[in-house]
Amino acid sequence: MRDMDRRSAVALGLAAAVVSAIPRPAAAQTSEADAVRVANATYYAAFSSRDIGAMEALWPRTAAAAAVHPFSRTPAVGWEAVRRSYEEAFARFAEVSATMGEPHIVVHQGTAWVVGTETLRGRRPNGEAVNVTALATNILEKQGDRWLVVLHHASGLAPQ
Amino acid sequence: MRDMDRRSAVALGLAAAVVSAIPRPAAAQTSEADAVRVANATYYAAFSSRDIGAMEALWPRTAAAAAVHPFSRTPAVGWEAVRRSYEEAFARFAEVSATMGEPHIVVHQGTAWVVGTETLRGRRPNGEAVNVTALATNILEKQGDRWLVVLHHASGLAPQ
Repeated sequence: MRDMDRRSAVALGLAAAVVSAIPRPAAAQTSEADAVRVANATYYAAFSSRDIGAMEALWPRTAAAAAVHPFSRTPAVGWEAVRRSYEEAFARFAEVSATMGEPHIVVHQGTAWVVGTETLRGRRPNGEAVNVTALATNILEKQGDRWLVVLHHASGLAPQ
Repeated sequence: MRDMDRRSAVALGLAAAVVSAIPRPAAAQTSEADAVRVANATYYAAFSSRDIGAMEALWPRTAAAAAVHPFSRTPAVGWEAVRRSYEEAFARFAEVSATMGEPHIVVHQGTAWVVGTETLRGRRPNGEAVNVTALATNILEKQGDRWLVVLHHASGLAPQ
């Protein structure tokens, strides 16, 4: 299997897993907000897999892509910088389960955004337990029949 | 003057000031990205004014509005919560000048988003100097011929 096929297969597998875990409405037709909810959950599944190929399959490879992580000193702008920022993020975990609870979803024409609270549980490479809460904004763009992630901004809570 | 007229007048005054400070292209026609750049700069002028009426004039009063500030513990969702979050933000300063340097702007149909580095200079109510760098994402929506802010997410830099 070519590398991209493998990546797509991983991403589709994640998407299928997420879809099956989400209660479906009785009607066969899925609303755009539901599709965005699934795409957003797929993003967290890809993050939790720490597989850069799975993450790559969810983003367009354009100069428009941008990411801000809790550890960022500047925004990562353009797909190559975003990709490197995820490699850096993934290297901070030996294992991680990332989810967003109660996402607030807005769909406007071919764009959607989601804001919510992320929970990350897992272990650092040195064995230390991870128990992190972050606030995140994700922007998605509809390309064909898929919702792709074009911006991710996550920030840690300030010390109280 | 009615309260809303006053607010609009304040916001328009800010917008006019920002527009005149920005070098204009030779062509009379302003591109959408330029219009978003101006709307984004107007947002920072409104923030710097610490006038909730000026800020209110830049947002639609809808349930879609959302804000995350560096001090937020959860996202503020819906205009009333967003408004309260700005009142809380403004109370943290006796004076402030907020700007975003080198905004990365993407326009997609009737939506635009901006990511960049914010600089805040001023004084706290107790006289302490403010010298803060934050990373921010702003989402704007075109309503009629105006770009309104529908989401603001700003986060402080993590300690190094």
